[in-house]
Amino acid sequence: MIKNRPLILISNDDGITAPGILATVDVMKTFGDVVVVAPDSPQSAMGHAISINKPLRLVKNNQFGPDVVSYHCSGTPADCVKMAVDKVLDRKPDLLVSGINHGSNASINVLYSGTMSAAMEGAIEGMTAIGFSLTDFSWDADFSASKVYMQKIVAQVLANGLSEGTLLSVNIPNVTESEIKGIKICRQARAKWEEDFVKREDPHGKDYYWMTGKFLNLDGGEDTDEWALAHNYVSVVPVQFDLTAHHAIQHLNTWQF
Amino acid sequence: MIKNRPLILISNDDGITAPGILATVDVMKTFGDVVVVAPDSPQSAMGHAISINKPLRLVKNNQFGPDVVSYHCSGTPADCVKMAVDKVLDRKPDLLVSGINHGSNASINVLYSGTMSAAMEGAIEGMTAIGFSLTDFSWDADFSASKVYMQKIVAQVLANGLSEGTLLSVNIPNVTESEIKGIKICRQARAKWEEDFVKREDPHGKDYYWMTGKFLNLDGGEDTDEWALAHNYVSVVPVQFDLTAHHAIQHLNTWQF
Repeated sequence: MIKNRPLILISNDDGITAPGILATVDVMKTFGDVVVVAPDSPQSAMGHAISINKPLRLVKNNQFGPDVVSYHCSGTPADCVKMAVDKVLDRKPDLLVSGINHGSNASINVLYSGTMSAAMEGAIEGMTAIGFSLTDFSWDADFSASKVYMQKIVAQVLANGLSEGTLLSVNIPNVTESEIKGIKICRQARAKWEEDFVKREDPHGKDYYWMTGKFLNLDGGEDTDEWALAHNYVSVVPVQFDLTAHHAIQHLNTWQF
Repeated sequence: MIKNRPLILISNDDGITAPGILATVDVMKTFGDVVVVAPDSPQSAMGHAISINKPLRLVKNNQFGPDVVSYHCSGTPADCVKMAVDKVLDRKPDLLVSGINHGSNASINVLYSGTMSAAMEGAIEGMTAIGFSLTDFSWDADFSASKVYMQKIVAQVLANGLSEGTLLSVNIPNVTESEIKGIKICRQARAKWEEDFVKREDPHGKDYYWMTGKFLNLDGGEDTDEWALAHNYVSVVPVQFDLTAHHAIQHLNTWQF
């Protein structure tokens, strides 16, 4: 590898063959040397799962041509980052980019997102990390506008850095580039999924259920990621892996156990 | 069910047959009417994974005797809570208790923990929620001291409530009741796992890897969960599912995209 170019680790949760990760590789090659370690199969909604009870495969491939070091791994997105650190990289990368996810990581989805767990795992390892998502679930989503905004945001992150313990979650609305109004720094909208498990019967007469659900935005704020996306802005949420509700500590200290 | 007794939902990540969940049922029966929906197999380290691409089973059982409504589910801990809300409960429970986990949910482990993801899923649904863990990974762990502290903490939570969007992560040190010095309200310690993937060769000559690792506490603070546990205190960390790094928003707004 050429010296002094940034070293960039790429992962995702849709798997190494997803068009979204190819879009990321295309953009990130213009910034530095790229190493990909991504799941060998789709791992959507895996949250921050890791594989402690089953062995993992790690296989070198040529998925992105001769200029890109690339591996696929049988584990979760978080596993991929851990594997990259221990078995692939010889130094800490200057940046980790996860995605581009096909779907939404906005609001509460950040918790379920495998894309964001890869980015978060990188941040825990001390890397500068960003997760990208385009709010289009289809495999043949058009990433052209996303690539333009990835370029803008990565340039700023490499120039400014991120404070320790903070990573970025970027969501891009599913509209054309000319319809995008700009970039908004946001907070995570308060929302939930209202599940409706659909019952089916197997050929042996036993019930099983498919998870379906309706997303409920419970947040009227205009400073949220959901507001930004609904108004054709790219949303950028700074995310942290310190889950402590610091504001609650003082009150809990008044309790008499 | 008897009216006016609290309705308590119980789940875990070690599975419905784990001794830790039996300990929880024992304690919680003294507080109210208990409904259990727990995984049918161990789901440790599943993080906040949910099952969107595979169907789920939900089966009523008699695991805890005739006084306890109990189901096992083929999904993750978060799936179990979603299933409970949609298919089992006829009203919002007054409390969700997850655990007692066999292991540690302290520090960064909160992110990987299936136990805590069940509690967090409950909190997202608007429930008052607590996850408990005893820092003993063995199946025959002694939960007697844990049960005493569960009793104390649940009594306070039912009396005082928790602020919206906040749940509790309780970790109990693996010592006898007389050695426990008390309860400390803490923040999540800054820490990481340093992975070492151990390589093996399968009978066909192909490599595979087992995740192993060393926990590194990077935090010298005396207000952390790791400090409390190391000094024989029960740690109580208020946890939130708003992952926004609010303190970073102002700085990011100065960036010129």
